[in-house]
Amino acid sequence: MIEIRFPDGAVRSYPKGTTSLEIAQSISEGLAKKVLAAKVNGVVCDATRPVETDASLQLLTWNDADGKQTFWHSSAHLMAEAVESMYPGVKFWVGPAIDHGFYYDMDLGVRKMLEEDLLAVEKKMNELAKQANAYQRKAISKAEAIAYFNEKGDEYKLDLLQNLQDGEITFYTQGNFTDLCRGPHIPNTGFIKAIKLTNIAGAYWKGDEHNKQLTRIYGITFPNQKELDEYIAMLEEAKRRDHRKLGKELSIFTMDDDVGPGLPLWMPNGTILIEELEKLAKETEEDAGYKRVVTPHIAKESMYLTSGHLPYYADSMFPPMEMDGEKYYLKAMNCPHHHKIFAAEPKSYRDLPYRIAEYGTCYRYEQSGELFGLMRVRCLHMNDAHIYCTKEQFTEEFKAVNNMYLKYFSLFGIDKYVMRLSLHDPAKLGQKYVNEPQLWLETEEMVRKVLIETNTPFVEVPDEAAFYGPKIDVQIWSAIGREFTLATNQVDFNSGRKFSLAYTTANNDTDIPLIIHRAPLGTHERFIGFLLEHYAGKFPVWLAPQQVAVLPISDRFVPYAREVALKLKQNRVRVQVDERNEKIGKKIREAEMMRIPYMLVVGEKEMHENMLSVRRQGRGDAGILPVADFLKNIVAEISERKSVE
Amino acid sequence: MIEIRFPDGAVRSYPKGTTSLEIAQSISEGLAKKVLAAKVNGVVCDATRPVETDASLQLLTWNDADGKQTFWHSSAHLMAEAVESMYPGVKFWVGPAIDHGFYYDMDLGVRKMLEEDLLAVEKKMNELAKQANAYQRKAISKAEAIAYFNEKGDEYKLDLLQNLQDGEITFYTQGNFTDLCRGPHIPNTGFIKAIKLTNIAGAYWKGDEHNKQLTRIYGITFPNQKELDEYIAMLEEAKRRDHRKLGKELSIFTMDDDVGPGLPLWMPNGTILIEELEKLAKETEEDAGYKRVVTPHIAKESMYLTSGHLPYYADSMFPPMEMDGEKYYLKAMNCPHHHKIFAAEPKSYRDLPYRIAEYGTCYRYEQSGELFGLMRVRCLHMNDAHIYCTKEQFTEEFKAVNNMYLKYFSLFGIDKYVMRLSLHDPAKLGQKYVNEPQLWLETEEMVRKVLIETNTPFVEVPDEAAFYGPKIDVQIWSAIGREFTLATNQVDFNSGRKFSLAYTTANNDTDIPLIIHRAPLGTHERFIGFLLEHYAGKFPVWLAPQQVAVLPISDRFVPYAREVALKLKQNRVRVQVDERNEKIGKKIREAEMMRIPYMLVVGEKEMHENMLSVRRQGRGDAGILPVADFLKNIVAEISERKSVE
Repeated sequence: MIEIRFPDGAVRSYPKGTTSLEIAQSISEGLAKKVLAAKVNGVVCDATRPVETDASLQLLTWNDADGKQTFWHSSAHLMAEAVESMYPGVKFWVGPAIDHGFYYDMDLGVRKMLEEDLLAVEKKMNELAKQANAYQRKAISKAEAIAYFNEKGDEYKLDLLQNLQDGEITFYTQGNFTDLCRGPHIPNTGFIKAIKLTNIAGAYWKGDEHNKQLTRIYGITFPNQKELDEYIAMLEEAKRRDHRKLGKELSIFTMDDDVGPGLPLWMPNGTILIEELEKLAKETEEDAGYKRVVTPHIAKESMYLTSGHLPYYADSMFPPMEMDGEKYYLKAMNCPHHHKIFAAEPKSYRDLPYRIAEYGTCYRYEQSGELFGLMRVRCLHMNDAHIYCTKEQFTEEFKAVNNMYLKYFSLFGIDKYVMRLSLHDPAKLGQKYVNEPQLWLETEEMVRKVLIETNTPFVEVPDEAAFYGPKIDVQIWSAIGREFTLATNQVDFNSGRKFSLAYTTANNDTDIPLIIHRAPLGTHERFIGFLLEHYAGKFPVWLAPQQVAVLPISDRFVPYAREVALKLKQNRVRVQVDERNEKIGKKIREAEMMRIPYMLVVGEKEMHENMLSVRRQGRGDAGILPVADFLKNIVAEISERKSVE
Repeated sequence: MIEIRFPDGAVRSYPKGTTSLEIAQSISEGLAKKVLAAKVNGVVCDATRPVETDASLQLLTWNDADGKQTFWHSSAHLMAEAVESMYPGVKFWVGPAIDHGFYYDMDLGVRKMLEEDLLAVEKKMNELAKQANAYQRKAISKAEAIAYFNEKGDEYKLDLLQNLQDGEITFYTQGNFTDLCRGPHIPNTGFIKAIKLTNIAGAYWKGDEHNKQLTRIYGITFPNQKELDEYIAMLEEAKRRDHRKLGKELSIFTMDDDVGPGLPLWMPNGTILIEELEKLAKETEEDAGYKRVVTPHIAKESMYLTSGHLPYYADSMFPPMEMDGEKYYLKAMNCPHHHKIFAAEPKSYRDLPYRIAEYGTCYRYEQSGELFGLMRVRCLHMNDAHIYCTKEQFTEEFKAVNNMYLKYFSLFGIDKYVMRLSLHDPAKLGQKYVNEPQLWLETEEMVRKVLIETNTPFVEVPDEAAFYGPKIDVQIWSAIGREFTLATNQVDFNSGRKFSLAYTTANNDTDIPLIIHRAPLGTHERFIGFLLEHYAGKFPVWLAPQQVAVLPISDRFVPYAREVALKLKQNRVRVQVDERNEKIGKKIREAEMMRIPYMLVVGEKEMHENMLSVRRQGRGDAGILPVADFLKNIVAEISERKSVE
């Protein structure tokens, strides 16, 4: 018998060689029907593999990221089976799961596949899925494997085999399709109930443009039709809400070839968003005891050698400028500059926690192919701050930062979020991470403890820490369910020593402060991109670039419209009068298109009674109000930063 | 007889050969006593030279810049006479007038002069001045001049003579001293009534460190003792108010070797100044119909080739970064980025004037030897904006900008200012200035007309325009009478075409907008440097980094002090409680030192009666007030941006 330990701590005994699927069945048939794979002693494997020793076991379903990945990778095999049956002789390269779905790269020879051919492949996949063919694993010697693919004339799999060790090679077969694959896979194709092939594209073999171009088919699958329908609806809504499309329609930002890729220019409407967000951040940070600083965008090489950005972060930095025999770099992060401000005057324990904030503009090099609207840029306006504190103060400060996130989430109606605790990889100490194994473990445990103590939902992710310490990245979901990685909260045990930062303790000793790096609102670029999608451009009134449009129904009412606008302006409401000689219907339609929250229609009756016909964007008529009442309401709505209802 | 035209337009006849001084005497003896030189047909020359033809004549006195320059250059000769009488055999290089005073470079041979020797020279100069020796001009042939200095063994003057044309060489003699000099000079040494030699330093011959080091003596002179006394007092006050000294004492900014020279880091106190100034500018600009934008700090080479910054402004730019096969430059000005925003969407005459503003950070290369505190830096936060308008709108817009300056001057108590209309130099078209002779003349005349129409005091300065058009630079004087060049208001007839900027006219044609570049508050760096001196660090309350210090006289009153501070904080008053266990006298002294406008002393009586003992910085006790009254007063003082009384 072997002992199986479950995630909840329970331990049960099973005969040696029982499969994970059988263990699931022993718990409930319902559960067994959902099991896609299993994590045995931390390694994801087929649910149908026998467990031979005592082990910890996590049964993976669609609700687990690893379950989804296994499902999608198996779907890639299913797609390959369908394609092979339709295009005999096709050769396959690799077919991994990706963040949302999967793809497979293939060589169709002289044949071509087009977008419209995908439907037939989908149909075939559905047919094969219904057969509920098992994914069968078979260990095979390297020689046999080579012989198999030589026979098939498949140079791609032969190429893959070159890098595999004999004794570690496996084939997976479902139905008539056999692939070289390390697995794992779902039990059988019957789990795949809903299929959508989303895209077909060219992809150079091994990503090298000198190689042959293969055909890449992207797809996504689900365990039921409902989820697929929702996914397609979400994609369509996301297209409508695309921040690049809305960014143009609402005159938020522009890009220019002469300025350069990844360098957005913020137009007046976008700048209002920026300034409102900065105002919010400044007020929030002032109330939380932060001071503000302003630092240059460049510094000498020596500073980045001290900080470790050179060499650890060099790939993400812009190339240097050579001047007066020195190299100057654009800053990719604000931290070293802030450390210099900490160091500029002697500090004592009375000065700690010392919190300094800056909406600092950083420059990071991204490959031009990676750039994407406001989401991947080279110029980042970061809601940055650094907190210098004692070890004893750390927990309180770190909690306060997390609470600040939650406060923002609530303000912006972000209901779904998860914190990712990013850890170092011990194998990469001294390369990707500063070589302080003990300090890594200590600080990682400090952060983990805070998250557990505060009941914050989090997942742990190895090998994604900053080079100077562990960090929390925050993933949030927009109103239509798309995922964004936004903000960051990091511990830094390294820079204090590197920059010789010190404070005098109450006992008149000196000590090195711990440093927290944090950016709850992330960057303007990504956050505004997110907000455009999240609100579909229909910003809450406090954020809206133009808050009110006054629409006189004819020229005669322009003076009254101006009078109304002036009153609003004097209260710093962002208002414009549409004085054009156009029909009122057109004026309303265009104001609706620009997502202006309030439209005030004024004509004969309104002018005589000092009233306004109020329309709310997207909701139509909102009644007739005296000017003073409307003014009072909107000023309150703005100053309270009321959410969209 | 010749006809002499005076600046007021009057014309009078004089015998041919009458000197300017005699003309002055013909008007009044009092005037003649003040005449230092004369501008005859626009050329400054000795007042004692005969006028041979009809001419325009301006008599120059101490009130004219050219009068002062002549006075100081003559003083340099007087100093040389004194030195030569005390150090026979001394050889002289050049002795020009400078902005404030004069210097002379000399070779003392093996002898050395020290700071303490200057008093003796001053004494000798006073003695020689009293002799009222005339400055006598003598035309001399090149051969004679060479013979003279050969005889004297003076290699320096022989070197100067090499570059002079025969027929244009003159000697000037006063008392026993003769110098090679093109003049002009004041009538006699008796005008020089007050003398101060300020400094002695080494200076390489011709500024080349491979040459011999000469001795440079700096001095300044005045037509009366009172002005010298005031000048010395001003220098001493300026030393006390030195922005670098105050900047450190008040924790405004810091510099760091690892960041680089000329790149200030703004500490929390300095950042408050920055943010208050930006708030002021944003409100002022919003009320004046400006919109705001945010642009990156870099752009591709192609943009600066279009703008003409390359090559016209290349020397002032940072070197490029080479990336993806392109050159990227840090922006030295915001204008090209703003032009791109103008161009991003089609414009019609309805959109004009289109005014876009940004507190943009620019980077300019200055020789490291030229850098000076906040006054000469490499990183500039500029109160920038660009106005795109029609020709018809130009005058109104340009006036509005000038009025904005005046509004700021009044707010900051700047009583003395002058606008310098900087014009192009026709000789440098195509090199320093874009080659559009006709457009230069037109726009210069447009600007001149606005200045005259608005009765704005201004002077014209040739060869100081921007490369794309004429500009107005504003000179202001601080409270202690020091001069600063601050702001700028420029016309640009060039960039509109270069960037293909266009708008649709009311007739459905297209036209190119004129562009106004303006920066009334200049840069944060220079303006805050100026304000530090102007206010001696005693900022008006709305600007003060810390506005209130609450000073409990012992620990017992800390809770009450905190309660008071909380009420102030809730109204966004910048307040701190001095909770240290120190004597109240020390707390007050330190708050005074930090120039905190209000100190609130709280003890037994105050706590029981909910009162505050108010002290005003630099003025002592200001009475006892209920908390609510103090709060009401200070909130009003801040929101009205009340000046220092």
